[in-house]
Amino acid sequence: MTAAAAEKRRSALRDHKRKAILAAARRVCDAGGPEALTIRAVAAQAGYAAGAVYSYFGGIDELAIALTAEELGHLARRMREAAERASGPAEALAAAAREALKATAGNAPHVRLAGRLMSAENLPVDLDRAVTGRVISVLETLGGPLRAATGLEGEAAHREILSLAALLIGLRVLDASGRLGALGFTAESLLAHRLAALPEA
Amino acid sequence: MTAAAAEKRRSALRDHKRKAILAAARRVCDAGGPEALTIRAVAAQAGYAAGAVYSYFGGIDELAIALTAEELGHLARRMREAAERASGPAEALAAAAREALKATAGNAPHVRLAGRLMSAENLPVDLDRAVTGRVISVLETLGGPLRAATGLEGEAAHREILSLAALLIGLRVLDASGRLGALGFTAESLLAHRLAALPEA
Repeated sequence: MTAAAAEKRRSALRDHKRKAILAAARRVCDAGGPEALTIRAVAAQAGYAAGAVYSYFGGIDELAIALTAEELGHLARRMREAAERASGPAEALAAAAREALKATAGNAPHVRLAGRLMSAENLPVDLDRAVTGRVISVLETLGGPLRAATGLEGEAAHREILSLAALLIGLRVLDASGRLGALGFTAESLLAHRLAALPEA
Repeated sequence: MTAAAAEKRRSALRDHKRKAILAAARRVCDAGGPEALTIRAVAAQAGYAAGAVYSYFGGIDELAIALTAEELGHLARRMREAAERASGPAEALAAAAREALKATAGNAPHVRLAGRLMSAENLPVDLDRAVTGRVISVLETLGGPLRAATGLEGEAAHREILSLAALLIGLRVLDASGRLGALGFTAESLLAHRLAALPEA
């Protein structure tokens, strides 16, 4: 084996192990919520020593946020696919936004885990970039159809995209907390009302 | 001491101890985030045995949500006071909404802790009612001025109040996660834009 081939193999092995740790972390979070996510619990679930986990993630915050980055990637893909199945820009925007609610419904552990981004400090540069990239992917699944549907551009478009994303986050939180149903509303109906009132250029 | 006086004294003591436990829980959450909140950590902080804490709260979920209920009460008071200082209904609505952002800025531990409401099941009836009451108080600090400013009533008013609350939650999350500043926006500017576009009756 040449040095280059050996290096490639080491890199593939590291990648495989990192993914196995993230998969274990997902199972821990699914089963016990974000509070159950500790390096020790993830290592036990993955069948590694805790020290092995630390060689991939600097700590539990970093691991939690890497898992959220992965979840955001899945979310962006689902939203993009939903938009692509729709027949026009307004329908694509509505489909992507509805899919954001649908994909996160009944997934409180990962929604709550994502809240960890609010306390994330001193993330490794690679991970911070990965999160930013995934967030932009999610926003763009809304942004493309929103620009096409409304004719908005530049700052005006950004403002509506971010406001819509904020609304989706808040609707998910209120809905999952049982605070919409009690008042006779659904996240979907409030979303539909907002989409119907989007400004146009 | 009569039986009634003894009972009153026991009840006051229980109330005092419950408050001391919640104050200890607040310090634990402030210092270490919601992940640090365990019955053991709160008991140690309060200077009680873990068993004593369990005689007030059925478990850590219940304790966490009692703390969130208290925080929601503080938030409603701050929002109401901000609205009362304003000079007209539109200004009162803006003041209450801005205060919601301001009061939660830099308070990521408690904002994240509130996320626990998304996984809360089988809460004691009293606690569930307390949370519902506090949520309604917060919504009403927006609702009163919103109705007065827009002339909306009934379902149409509820819809705007809930949508505004959802927007505020999402803006707080996006902002605290560093995802607004990077794009040149502030939560306050997005809120102002939304308030300027509220429908009227």
